[in-house]
Amino acid sequence: MGKGAETRAERTRAAITEAAAEQFLGAGFLGASMDDIAALAGVSKQTVYAHFESKEALFVAMVRGLTGGAGDEFRARVADPTGERPVSEFLIDFATSQLQIVMTPRLMQLRRLVIGEVGRFPELGRALHEKGPQRSIDRLSAAFLIYCDLGALAIEDLDQAATFFNWLIMGGPVNNVMLLGDKAILDEADIERHAQEAVRIFLAAYGAGGRPAGKPPMA
Amino acid sequence: MGKGAETRAERTRAAITEAAAEQFLGAGFLGASMDDIAALAGVSKQTVYAHFESKEALFVAMVRGLTGGAGDEFRARVADPTGERPVSEFLIDFATSQLQIVMTPRLMQLRRLVIGEVGRFPELGRALHEKGPQRSIDRLSAAFLIYCDLGALAIEDLDQAATFFNWLIMGGPVNNVMLLGDKAILDEADIERHAQEAVRIFLAAYGAGGRPAGKPPMA
Repeated sequence: MGKGAETRAERTRAAITEAAAEQFLGAGFLGASMDDIAALAGVSKQTVYAHFESKEALFVAMVRGLTGGAGDEFRARVADPTGERPVSEFLIDFATSQLQIVMTPRLMQLRRLVIGEVGRFPELGRALHEKGPQRSIDRLSAAFLIYCDLGALAIEDLDQAATFFNWLIMGGPVNNVMLLGDKAILDEADIERHAQEAVRIFLAAYGAGGRPAGKPPMA
Repeated sequence: MGKGAETRAERTRAAITEAAAEQFLGAGFLGASMDDIAALAGVSKQTVYAHFESKEALFVAMVRGLTGGAGDEFRARVADPTGERPVSEFLIDFATSQLQIVMTPRLMQLRRLVIGEVGRFPELGRALHEKGPQRSIDRLSAAFLIYCDLGALAIEDLDQAATFFNWLIMGGPVNNVMLLGDKAILDEADIERHAQEAVRIFLAAYGAGGRPAGKPPMA
């Protein structure tokens, strides 16, 4: 197969996934039809099935694509720290950027849809968890290790601390949008205020006051 | 109407709500039928409609009943503080009891169902929010005010601090169960460990070291 054909196949696949996102997010898993998805993507239903063997497989691909795409965007915007940035600056940047990227009507509706279908499609919840919160928590653990080595943080259980930080940031805001709808999405000023206080709480508990590694605090 | 009739009506209503919970939680809102609910409750469909004007109204009553019931149980178990208990003891009791009461397969499935239906039935999400997290946050705000007056906590924005505490406790555990299913429900030892660390984090940020109210910390 030549390069042109490959690119066309990729474009078709992307068009189908995009059409699937629109249909699934609007109508739910049961409500969406493969006919409508094919029509919206401008391809035949046969073509849809040539790319995705079933409605379930298309749904999983759509969830992984949207969640993974947001994670990639987040990583491009907030680089993993190498220790040059003060820890509070990194944490505030991480927190505000994550809220800005994740709290869109589309990703929030995806999350509602996945949660509502977890009984029927447990692999969807696992995919969203792996590509969403777990990826953030893993990034935070790695960052905390660097700041511990620099003596800026004092953490025994990196994964536990990363999980608490992630949910200090996302817990209230995401839960409110899950239950109260998109009007509960925070505006920029509220994101800033929320992130500042969450980071203050976290550093009160895990900050080492920036003392050099290995040096105990003054008695 | 005599007392006996009143009691019978209440019993019928409770039987219908219980049957509704079983059907809705098992089959979802669209999947559940009023015929099945009536049969399970051992009443006629007419009787169901005499108590609840529509499937929607019955769904809302079921959500409010289950969520409010859990909140009542929680309040009976963990009394609002009057200041006799040390703040850390109150907070750990609050946190562990809330996790034990809320993280049941039934309440977690209710939550998934409500989130999945928020687009169609926004009043469900509002009811769960009001009877669930908002009620906890309001209880915490009132408790924090007492402990601030006693000089055990130093908090400027009670509602903000209560919201952070609530999601320090519930954020990770509830989110994991939403996405990963009931096998992610914490066992007793994990609840205890989680609550201890969450309270430690909170008190590092908002504790006033138990100094008497009005007395500044030592310089």
